[in-house]
Amino acid sequence: MPVRTPDPDPNESGDERRDPLNAFELGGSLPADANNPAWLSDVELTEARRRLPMLYVEALPVRLDGLGNVTQVGILLRATPMGEITRTIVSGRVRYGETVRDALFRHLENDLGPMAFPLLPPQPTPFTVAEYFPIPGVSAFHDDRQHAVSLAYVVPVTGTCEPRQDALELTWMEPAEAASDALAAEMEGGRGTLVRLGLASVGALR
Amino acid sequence: MPVRTPDPDPNESGDERRDPLNAFELGGSLPADANNPAWLSDVELTEARRRLPMLYVEALPVRLDGLGNVTQVGILLRATPMGEITRTIVSGRVRYGETVRDALFRHLENDLGPMAFPLLPPQPTPFTVAEYFPIPGVSAFHDDRQHAVSLAYVVPVTGTCEPRQDALELTWMEPAEAASDALAAEMEGGRGTLVRLGLASVGALR
Amino acid sequence: MPVRTPDPDPNESGDERRDPLNAFELGGSLPADANNPAWLSDVELTEARRRLPMLYVEALPVRLDGLGNVTQVGILLRATPMGEITRTIVSGRVRYGETVRDALFRHLENDLGPMAFPLLPPQPTPFTVAEYFPIPGVSAFHDDRQHAVSLAYVVPVTGTCEPRQDALELTWMEPAEAASDALAAEMEGGRGTLVRLGLASVGALR
Amino acid sequence: MPVRTPDPDPNESGDERRDPLNAFELGGSLPADANNPAWLSDVELTEARRRLPMLYVEALPVRLDGLGNVTQVGILLRATPMGEITRTIVSGRVRYGETVRDALFRHLENDLGPMAFPLLPPQPTPFTVAEYFPIPGVSAFHDDRQHAVSLAYVVPVTGTCEPRQDALELTWMEPAEAASDALAAEMEGGRGTLVRLGLASVGALR
Repeated sequence: MPVRTPDPDPNESGDERRDPLNAFELGGSLPADANNPAWLSDVELTEARRRLPMLYVEALPVRLDGLGNVTQVGILLRATPMGEITRTIVSGRVRYGETVRDALFRHLENDLGPMAFPLLPPQPTPFTVAEYFPIPGVSAFHDDRQHAVSLAYVVPVTGTCEPRQDALELTWMEPAEAASDALAAEMEGGRGTLVRLGLASVGALR
Repeated sequence: MPVRTPDPDPNESGDERRDPLNAFELGGSLPADANNPAWLSDVELTEARRRLPMLYVEALPVRLDGLGNVTQVGILLRATPMGEITRTIVSGRVRYGETVRDALFRHLENDLGPMAFPLLPPQPTPFTVAEYFPIPGVSAFHDDRQHAVSLAYVVPVTGTCEPRQDALELTWMEPAEAASDALAAEMEGGRGTLVRLGLASVGALR
Repeated sequence: MPVRTPDPDPNESGDERRDPLNAFELGGSLPADANNPAWLSDVELTEARRRLPMLYVEALPVRLDGLGNVTQVGILLRATPMGEITRTIVSGRVRYGETVRDALFRHLENDLGPMAFPLLPPQPTPFTVAEYFPIPGVSAFHDDRQHAVSLAYVVPVTGTCEPRQDALELTWMEPAEAASDALAAEMEGGRGTLVRLGLASVGALR
Repeated sequence: MPVRTPDPDPNESGDERRDPLNAFELGGSLPADANNPAWLSDVELTEARRRLPMLYVEALPVRLDGLGNVTQVGILLRATPMGEITRTIVSGRVRYGETVRDALFRHLENDLGPMAFPLLPPQPTPFTVAEYFPIPGVSAFHDDRQHAVSLAYVVPVTGTCEPRQDALELTWMEPAEAASDALAAEMEGGRGTLVRLGLASVGALR
């Protein structure tokens, strides 16, 4: 798979404008403006990405049976800004002032729609910590835009998923298919490995 | 707290009769009878308890908010066979042929009623492995009946709990109260420690 | 892979005789005799295996580099009582009165020799709970002798391994080889899956 | 405990100059200069801290017995830039291009000296994710300088600790003392809670 960005996040700057300081400082209600000191312009965010590790959250959406066994895994089909089609999972940046849970919920809603009804896990510990480096080969994960450190969670989803934005489609598949080499080859930034680690954490990898 | 059994389980032998080999061999449908080789009489079970470690599952029932934060913890009030009132959590034995998930679900239903709608976690890993020994002081946990090794899980509960059998009442309390020394002193077999370890695993212990 | 026992444990009854009640009751010093009520004869153990889930521990031996990355995985070559050669990992039963840590240490020493210097992890939580059933297909794991529930740990080993007893040889291999389909096909009872789950837990599965 | 910085890190800018891009881009060998685009001046770092969550690692140093049980916990006595004496654990920022393991090792060496011989855990998953916010009360953790998200690990230490830099002293104490209210009151930024969560993760909290 050629080098490509794991999280195109085309609405990043827009979102950033909508609720820059969010919940804990502004109660989520104050419209931010250009004078807000915590606001990052596109240029500044690009700059920061070359100097600091960015904190990300990722979620592997799953369906469970009544006993908690994973029966299906949700994989996103996504168009990159270059028009390429790749597969990925829910992924996005944690903003200044935002809790990890808030970030996880926001990105799940962005990628799966408002009726997905994700069940965020009570544990704060991720199933793995995925480290994305701009130079391939440092770890299993790669992002040519930045050094990103991602907390990855398995998140059961109970509602109806309607992918939004650049996520064209959500495909539900069985664990064995999600863990296959064929799927891994279509996933961006090494996320085929991430899917396998997530499945292993729930005992659904053979 | 004086020495006492962590799991009175007065219906153990009765249950044992109802579905001894259960799901995987009998499809859960065949009524067991006294000739079933996997059936343990009360005497045999008592005997086995003095010679083999017994496998248990335990569950700390919790209520979550929309972001997965634990807001309340469910503690059971239980009458022992001796008429004493103690506090405990959901707990019970794993039977021959039964999966850990099946055992967890069965004991949740037994202790919280059929409308509790527990959400069993997708991960098979417990938050801790609690080792109960008949001699106090070997570990934090104690059971004068047996050597039991318990896989303990935090289980979100979404429905209405109606304790059954010997569980007189379920009390919902805030994490801080559930972790208090006062509550720990009322809990049997060292389960105050278990409650704290469970709360710590979800970041709800201060 | 044909049905076969995951843990031949030919010295089980002998060991059982040597320290049946061990540490916590006898201080590990009293020679047990046939009158010891916690002693199980071969016949009784066989009987118990058909009526109760047996508690096991398993260990995936690994070598670490100075930063804690897994560089090598130790796989055992073992002759079954039938003379077949299979591959497996460290595995064995937890005895009555024995802590999980004591059992883990005992089986590591039995299988890897007294100079292996294993570093038992401070966490009591296994990387997975493997459930072995006598009927294949109930789970990923299978043991035609018994229903066994196994707590599986990744254990760094710092010394020299000299397999003893029925373990003919320990082979150190890279994580990728240990996770391969070829190796999984040679492993008994579904332990190829267990190796993969262990590697995933340390981020060493691709 | 009054508001104060969890990580005074007085050598941050100096370190930053010494190996700004480190391992993965420069092979750790190139002396960085002021023209290096990944270099952050003190002013820029201060600025970034008001706009992006900073990624941290923290380590709770422990001593283990031969079976992996935690017997002692290492707590640092530290002088803040204001001359106050507080207690803390090993803590510091992950730099651009640095792996989490490298950062953990670097801060352990900085705080405990070169002869501490820490055993970094093979698992990449922290025992908890501690979120520090500049406004107290958002979470259990607080840092008035910044929004920091910290991956916290229990790290066994086998050598001799000689605290360096601003860490005046390392005190080894029993788990019960480390978890006490008295100690928590002396710890900065809510790290008394972090110590308890770490102890709980190894089953050493009662």
